[in-house]
Amino acid sequence: MGTKDELLRYLREEQGNWISGEKVSRRIGVSRSAIWKQVSRLRQEGYVIRSSSKKGYLFLGTPEMLLPAEIREGIGTEVFGRKEIVYFPELDSTNRKAKELAAEGAPEGTLVVAEEQTRGRGRIGRSWHSPFQTGIYMSLILRPKLPPNEAPKITLVTGVAVAEALLAVTPLKPDIKWPNDILVRGRKICGILTETSTEMDAIDFVVVGVGMNVNTREFPDDLKEIATSVSLETGKTFDRVMLMREFLRQFEHLYTTFLHSGFESIGKRWSELSILLGKDVSVHMIDRTCKGRVMELDRDGALIIKGEHGELEKIYSGDIHIE
Amino acid sequence: MGTKDELLRYLREEQGNWISGEKVSRRIGVSRSAIWKQVSRLRQEGYVIRSSSKKGYLFLGTPEMLLPAEIREGIGTEVFGRKEIVYFPELDSTNRKAKELAAEGAPEGTLVVAEEQTRGRGRIGRSWHSPFQTGIYMSLILRPKLPPNEAPKITLVTGVAVAEALLAVTPLKPDIKWPNDILVRGRKICGILTETSTEMDAIDFVVVGVGMNVNTREFPDDLKEIATSVSLETGKTFDRVMLMREFLRQFEHLYTTFLHSGFESIGKRWSELSILLGKDVSVHMIDRTCKGRVMELDRDGALIIKGEHGELEKIYSGDIHIE
Repeated sequence: MGTKDELLRYLREEQGNWISGEKVSRRIGVSRSAIWKQVSRLRQEGYVIRSSSKKGYLFLGTPEMLLPAEIREGIGTEVFGRKEIVYFPELDSTNRKAKELAAEGAPEGTLVVAEEQTRGRGRIGRSWHSPFQTGIYMSLILRPKLPPNEAPKITLVTGVAVAEALLAVTPLKPDIKWPNDILVRGRKICGILTETSTEMDAIDFVVVGVGMNVNTREFPDDLKEIATSVSLETGKTFDRVMLMREFLRQFEHLYTTFLHSGFESIGKRWSELSILLGKDVSVHMIDRTCKGRVMELDRDGALIIKGEHGELEKIYSGDIHIE
Repeated sequence: MGTKDELLRYLREEQGNWISGEKVSRRIGVSRSAIWKQVSRLRQEGYVIRSSSKKGYLFLGTPEMLLPAEIREGIGTEVFGRKEIVYFPELDSTNRKAKELAAEGAPEGTLVVAEEQTRGRGRIGRSWHSPFQTGIYMSLILRPKLPPNEAPKITLVTGVAVAEALLAVTPLKPDIKWPNDILVRGRKICGILTETSTEMDAIDFVVVGVGMNVNTREFPDDLKEIATSVSLETGKTFDRVMLMREFLRQFEHLYTTFLHSGFESIGKRWSELSILLGKDVSVHMIDRTCKGRVMELDRDGALIIKGEHGELEKIYSGDIHIE
């Protein structure tokens, strides 16, 4: 741990109490002027720290930012968010950046975080509205030892993790809409974009992108009817860092379960959380549209739809509309 | 077409004949000193052009290089090799470079070519011996509108194209060894490395890497028993450019057939060229080994193997050894 991180941890322990510069210097093991430099850097990052030549330092609060040190603090995971966290005040797309880092060899668990995305992306070239410091815009690099045809299940695992995180720390009741949306009261609160790089018959890496509307108070006109945020649904402002940590914990747990014990238990939980099971839907695919009732999620992660003549169809991709 | 390409085409038409500088200048429509400059550039690229103040220019030959203008000359394809051809005297890996270009948006048909690879790659992290100017080391960017689970078939399509190209322009009888090797008399003459980038349920791009031993005369000790080259098998030196053009033509034709009419006819041809059908093999997979007789290539591009108790297994990936 670097001097700055050690200092931050100590200041945080003593939050609300003045600590003398000498005491801090002894504890961290560097000179008082080195401490002063690090305090300046922490302030630049948005931490609120008062100082007095007589009383020393007083730590008052953490910034409203998704800073790496904040995300790591007490995260309780083994790998996710414990490797490098690459932070950007502004970025075109966290998925694009994560793919670039993965291609350069970044390990599983590497996290890319942005306060704002200027070209946030959704499925099939759609955009994801990503205004400054209101949402969670993050991409996680995974390197699962799985055959490529198992990769689509990672999107489903991620969906369950997002829903579990929202259930754990908010009063909301999220629904999963296959394949990659999380809804609250029928409106999109979170989207998932999974991108996979495959070398012949093995996965090289998977980038899991998550865009969650947390403290967004207003949406552009074209999204007003279809999008919502944790804040709009609860009337409160939520701590994005805490929500992100909860998601990473849930996701790591489910991902590990998936790799070691298979998809079955996660598939069951997915089905409980799904908004589509039993509904009559139309599915728009690249080359055709299919109508029917959603019967189940099968072992491959495909949706089984029963058409009007009783025929069963296996759907691997498409846009679904509830009739 | 640039001045240099026009000049090259004209000189080539008149190969073996002296043409006066004035005539060349009139034909191309630039000054005689501009012609002189372009001739110098062509010479730097390895073209053999004599010049005389009295007689003008005499074109004698093309260089032993995989130069873009050489590859394009009379290639007869619609897309493959008709987009940008990115040429390197030396490169770490053509697949790595092609993936980088594809991520930046390079269109289908973009080709990366190197005279030498310092880190030529094969399947599962293996290397591909790629000495200077003896082989074809190339990667082609594709953007097929296919669901991701169809991507592995592109490796099989490529294998058929390599075999057809060798059949068309050499006296060799190549065999395809599933999934990605082309053999002559049981030795590797060509390897294929396909890498796919997927966004949710759609392919973003596929990079098809081909490494072919053409004029290689000697292999390092560890490859001597298992590798061969067109030259070692025929006793002749082959024109790499011509062989590459033939491959690109065959590949474009088969790829187009695959996209528009499906895999069936290519699968049949693949089976005719396969060395494995009917053979007793052991397949080494990540987590286990399976033994049996190779029965057929199924519709998914998987190999069907019949075990000793008559049970059928579908193999999607692995290393195969003939027993």
